[in-house]
Amino acid sequence: MPREITATIISIGDELLIGQTINTNAGWIGMQLGLVGVRAKRVVTIGDERQEIMDSLGEADTDIVSITGGLGPTKDDITKHTLCEFFGTTLEKHPEIEENILAFFTSIGREPLEVNRAQADLPASCTVIPNTRGTASGMWFDTAKQKAPTAKAKVYVSMPGVPGEMKRMMLDTVLPEIQRSFLPPHIVHRTILTTGMGESHLAQRIEGWEDSLSAERIKLAYLPSPGTVKLRLSAYAETDPEAAIHRINSKVEELHGLIPELIFGEGEQRMQQVVGDLLKANGQTLALAESCTGGYVSHLITSVPGSSAYYTGGVVSYANAVKMEELGIPSDMLELNGAVSQPVAEKMATGVRTALRTDWSISITGIAGPDGGTLEKPVGTVWMAVAGPDGVWSKCEHFIGSRGAVIQRSALASLDMLRKRLLHQA
Amino acid sequence: MPREITATIISIGDELLIGQTINTNAGWIGMQLGLVGVRAKRVVTIGDERQEIMDSLGEADTDIVSITGGLGPTKDDITKHTLCEFFGTTLEKHPEIEENILAFFTSIGREPLEVNRAQADLPASCTVIPNTRGTASGMWFDTAKQKAPTAKAKVYVSMPGVPGEMKRMMLDTVLPEIQRSFLPPHIVHRTILTTGMGESHLAQRIEGWEDSLSAERIKLAYLPSPGTVKLRLSAYAETDPEAAIHRINSKVEELHGLIPELIFGEGEQRMQQVVGDLLKANGQTLALAESCTGGYVSHLITSVPGSSAYYTGGVVSYANAVKMEELGIPSDMLELNGAVSQPVAEKMATGVRTALRTDWSISITGIAGPDGGTLEKPVGTVWMAVAGPDGVWSKCEHFIGSRGAVIQRSALASLDMLRKRLLHQA
Repeated sequence: MPREITATIISIGDELLIGQTINTNAGWIGMQLGLVGVRAKRVVTIGDERQEIMDSLGEADTDIVSITGGLGPTKDDITKHTLCEFFGTTLEKHPEIEENILAFFTSIGREPLEVNRAQADLPASCTVIPNTRGTASGMWFDTAKQKAPTAKAKVYVSMPGVPGEMKRMMLDTVLPEIQRSFLPPHIVHRTILTTGMGESHLAQRIEGWEDSLSAERIKLAYLPSPGTVKLRLSAYAETDPEAAIHRINSKVEELHGLIPELIFGEGEQRMQQVVGDLLKANGQTLALAESCTGGYVSHLITSVPGSSAYYTGGVVSYANAVKMEELGIPSDMLELNGAVSQPVAEKMATGVRTALRTDWSISITGIAGPDGGTLEKPVGTVWMAVAGPDGVWSKCEHFIGSRGAVIQRSALASLDMLRKRLLHQA
Repeated sequence: MPREITATIISIGDELLIGQTINTNAGWIGMQLGLVGVRAKRVVTIGDERQEIMDSLGEADTDIVSITGGLGPTKDDITKHTLCEFFGTTLEKHPEIEENILAFFTSIGREPLEVNRAQADLPASCTVIPNTRGTASGMWFDTAKQKAPTAKAKVYVSMPGVPGEMKRMMLDTVLPEIQRSFLPPHIVHRTILTTGMGESHLAQRIEGWEDSLSAERIKLAYLPSPGTVKLRLSAYAETDPEAAIHRINSKVEELHGLIPELIFGEGEQRMQQVVGDLLKANGQTLALAESCTGGYVSHLITSVPGSSAYYTGGVVSYANAVKMEELGIPSDMLELNGAVSQPVAEKMATGVRTALRTDWSISITGIAGPDGGTLEKPVGTVWMAVAGPDGVWSKCEHFIGSRGAVIQRSALASLDMLRKRLLHQA
């Protein structure tokens, strides 16, 4: 196996140290480097201070140093000047970058200031990395071409701290260039999305399958979050990437055979997208009747662009009066069973489906807490129902966690119920 | 002014480096240290590796070193053992901690394993910091009492990486102890929450007031996020904390006089809480009619525990048919004006207020994007209305940003409209 390639991630910005901005860039960069076979060894977060930046550049003893932040046009952004000092170089005007900057300002209908034009002044000894989303260029320093006796790493890459700009630059230029320059061991990944079972029970359930992975030289990572567990399979491609892809694919197929009811998607998919795509493919529509989730499922559905093609709307029936008047729940049904019950959940689903004349509907009624629980129906008790062309299905769950966690788990579980019905009918 | 007290924040955990978990602890700790007058100089994030931990402990050249992570009961958690090595000490059993651990397991109805009992083995030379939320104790190392010739800092504090456990420990024990040991300059803060004006326009508007702060030795920070700008005022208390509080209070009073319509709260308050508290105080109720926000406002309102006291429910009228049938919008009104228009917004508000029989209602109809915009009504065009006992008010905004940003800005702006009506009537 080839030698391990390592990286240091330096994040620059006063706002990160005082907790005004959470440093999400470092984790994302670490993950992306991992996906191309480079191990992030250390993240160093510092303020916009010359000495701190110089020290951090000099200390980094990895192959690659990734630097983000401090490239804005204002005085407090000093990364570019400090890089010049570290590498013993000076700034020079890049006319093609200046043109890009002027074009960018024209496109947003504003006049560039002198400080904006100055963003075309870049270190003479670096390779400039174009920024397709903003005016701060990235910089790639190959140490072999620099006067930097204290530099221990082979390559230093400086990128803007704005996440959208950095990510584009990383994916389009930096990661491909790292793969070309370092030939890290090629790694193949697939990430399988599951819901409906916690991490430890899932691990027990697929124990035998997991044990069989090592013979195929596949690594497994569990990535849990409330309501879902992602399973990431990784294999080194060694000399033959096709063979690694084949090894992973056949293990994923086995997994689909083992836990078909738990897998809802793959990669970067989200549940609301999976459900939306199924509805769109069927040419069918959806309505919602939410009680304890208070509009959160509706928010998830409508966070997907284009959701108006299949989502007509919903009713948030927080008060019992709304359940009766908008959804047609009989008052004696509420009195007899309570609002958190199977008959009420089912009637909410059929009621909203009829009122909004859709093909499908979901209803949720439960106790999100922290108050409102009883001995018989403790906090976390949630009834969910799905109504469709062929009938109505319902189930009860007892979720644990905070009010926010119960809401999130209820949303995922109810969307997954609908997903299964949509697949079942297909 | 007293000497500056500085801190290094060390975050330990493989999951942080590979981006599986975002490091939110470091920013929170940096902010809390700042609030008691300690400056976070550097954050170092490393994996669960002995040499990396030893190096980071030895390099830190600040007064205080805060360490989180790696205190779990399993083999891969090695922070405690590495601290013993660094400080030349050994583990010893703490019977009172063992009792706490046993009591904790009894409380959750489980049997402790041997690895759980071993969490009562702690370095002999440290002061143990109790954990009220879990089984991993914190450790406070005073360097003067250690055999650690390479230690440069005066105090090293090790805490669990679980945010809830760490925060409790920090607030209850670590921050008070830091204040006692280091007597950092006492700082007084107030944070004023504003909405309705972007950071740069706001800065222009309050320029004169901002300039007057330095004479009162008050620092101002702008903390922007979509739809809100927080203004944080800080003053060193020097010898007389009362005088600093008085200086800040009188400047905050001036600010209220300058931008009364932009200020909606203070400190950790959130808009949905402010509105909820006003409704509760009035004994009044609210209903919502949401189109482009798709349930997000309802989700915000119901994320506040106890919101069922004033929130009865809402209608998400994504399709025009739902606007007509559930909210009584005449079809010719939709045809004539389009769904994103003043008459439709107003009728949505009065319609849902009548249907759900509440005192107040909010409606929102707009184009969140990325599709659906026209030359006349581009993406970001949003009509909002509030209906109440004395009539209906409406306004149009043109928000910029992504689909998510337009939804968030619309939610804040519409809640702020209601807030102003609630105050106006009071």
